[in-house]
Amino acid sequence: MLSSVCGSLRRTLCNGSVLASKHPFLGRSNALKLETKPVCTRVMYRSYSANMHGQEVVFRQLFDNTSFTYTYLLGDAASKEAVLIDPVIELVDRDVRIVKELGLNLKYAVNTHVHADHVTGTGEIKKRIPTCKSVIAECSQAKADVFINEGDGIEFGQFKLECRSTPGHTDGCFTYVWHEKGMAFTGDALLIRGCGRTDFQQGSSEALYKSVHGKILSLPEQFILYPAHDYTGQTSTTVREEKNHNPRLTKPIDVFIRIMSELNLPYPKQLDRALPANMVCGIFDTESPPSKS
Amino acid sequence: MLSSVCGSLRRTLCNGSVLASKHPFLGRSNALKLETKPVCTRVMYRSYSANMHGQEVVFRQLFDNTSFTYTYLLGDAASKEAVLIDPVIELVDRDVRIVKELGLNLKYAVNTHVHADHVTGTGEIKKRIPTCKSVIAECSQAKADVFINEGDGIEFGQFKLECRSTPGHTDGCFTYVWHEKGMAFTGDALLIRGCGRTDFQQGSSEALYKSVHGKILSLPEQFILYPAHDYTGQTSTTVREEKNHNPRLTKPIDVFIRIMSELNLPYPKQLDRALPANMVCGIFDTESPPSKS
Repeated sequence: MLSSVCGSLRRTLCNGSVLASKHPFLGRSNALKLETKPVCTRVMYRSYSANMHGQEVVFRQLFDNTSFTYTYLLGDAASKEAVLIDPVIELVDRDVRIVKELGLNLKYAVNTHVHADHVTGTGEIKKRIPTCKSVIAECSQAKADVFINEGDGIEFGQFKLECRSTPGHTDGCFTYVWHEKGMAFTGDALLIRGCGRTDFQQGSSEALYKSVHGKILSLPEQFILYPAHDYTGQTSTTVREEKNHNPRLTKPIDVFIRIMSELNLPYPKQLDRALPANMVCGIFDTESPPSKS
Repeated sequence: MLSSVCGSLRRTLCNGSVLASKHPFLGRSNALKLETKPVCTRVMYRSYSANMHGQEVVFRQLFDNTSFTYTYLLGDAASKEAVLIDPVIELVDRDVRIVKELGLNLKYAVNTHVHADHVTGTGEIKKRIPTCKSVIAECSQAKADVFINEGDGIEFGQFKLECRSTPGHTDGCFTYVWHEKGMAFTGDALLIRGCGRTDFQQGSSEALYKSVHGKILSLPEQFILYPAHDYTGQTSTTVREEKNHNPRLTKPIDVFIRIMSELNLPYPKQLDRALPANMVCGIFDTESPPSKS
């Protein structure tokens, strides 16, 4: 199906007016069915490149060397429909160039949450690709073209991302699960051997612990986890690794809450610029994006 | 087979003494057979995660935010044998921790060439993992435990990397091709939408052009190419993309040579420190590695 965001989908224009879903028939139950599909355990030689470049899907991990943000481009090689997760405003030129060079039709520019450390590129991307719609969690209270809620599906070509609410870093944090490919995009809920801070933006260490264990580490152990950030040069992890080696989330919840309360992290450099901009797709009330070296 | 580097392999101790190959029966012809294996075109759902994490292979791309170097960890999940390509000395702690957390037996720490922009971590890794052997091209004239030549194979568990000589950035540049997985690790010969400079270290634009077109862009178009560096936040490309979009290497050779002659690049920041160190596995005559923030 080539429908847009599904389930209890609602669309809102940037002026805030809300339209009813056009796809009530693809809801949470449908999205969750993917999770119970039998896992094919047969392994094919060369299927990595066959799957990941050109023959079935397009997958590209991109990085911002300033905010240490990862952006992800996911595409269906057959239909050319694609989704971009967590673009950064200063790197929209790069991202749009890659989308065009790969001949992709970018349906959605999706945020995992309202970022505090960089300005989202979703608004700028909509200017360059007018058919692209911005997407964010309805409970984030940020503006976007499409709101998502728990269990919704974001479809592109033959594929679909299941939307899982994973609050704790912020109320509106979502993890996007690509069941067919055994991947999840965790935003700031789960980082590689770490997790997002919980000391501002409705942060809750208890909520984050329950989100990560209940919605992310409950996925199959071989699932690859792609975070919104890494500061150590690591690009991915797996459910198995984080269940065994995450120094915070392997602890009991009371120890985790104490660890998070004692982090004493500095005030985010871009917070005052990023938060108001990210509430409106990064396109209003922002200074001109600084040029990248 | 669990043999070490194959083909016209020779081992040399760091004092330079050379031993004959123990594996003359696995040579160039054997390595090249991989290239002519029929390609399986059937695509399996979830085979990306099944292949790339835990079930058959381990693959991890790592990044140095200072020198913009990519390090690659490749492992056979069954035998746990692994290879690390282009480690950076300042990040050896990170790389060794990941190797141990994943329960891998690191057989080889391999360099694609004698780097001018960072000090290799191969020597430091040998100190932490004494069974690991350093590997570099024989024609690089650098010291290492194992020398490779055109057509040799680097085996780890059930897998093998084919060694392809791709001079031009330096005489000793090699590209490592993982035929079973449709990947190639191109070092500085081919970068994403670019290529390595050719204005020092025996650089030759003509040689580089012939290396890239003859040894890398001649691979199947869906092969994923992983470079030693990227400065724009891109993590991989494909043969198809570089054949269509590389702004230098899509040009005729005479235009390419002119482009390379007019780059006027600055002197590499770490060259004076890196070159002498990298001629001896990065372990002699080097200052203490600066701490990473």
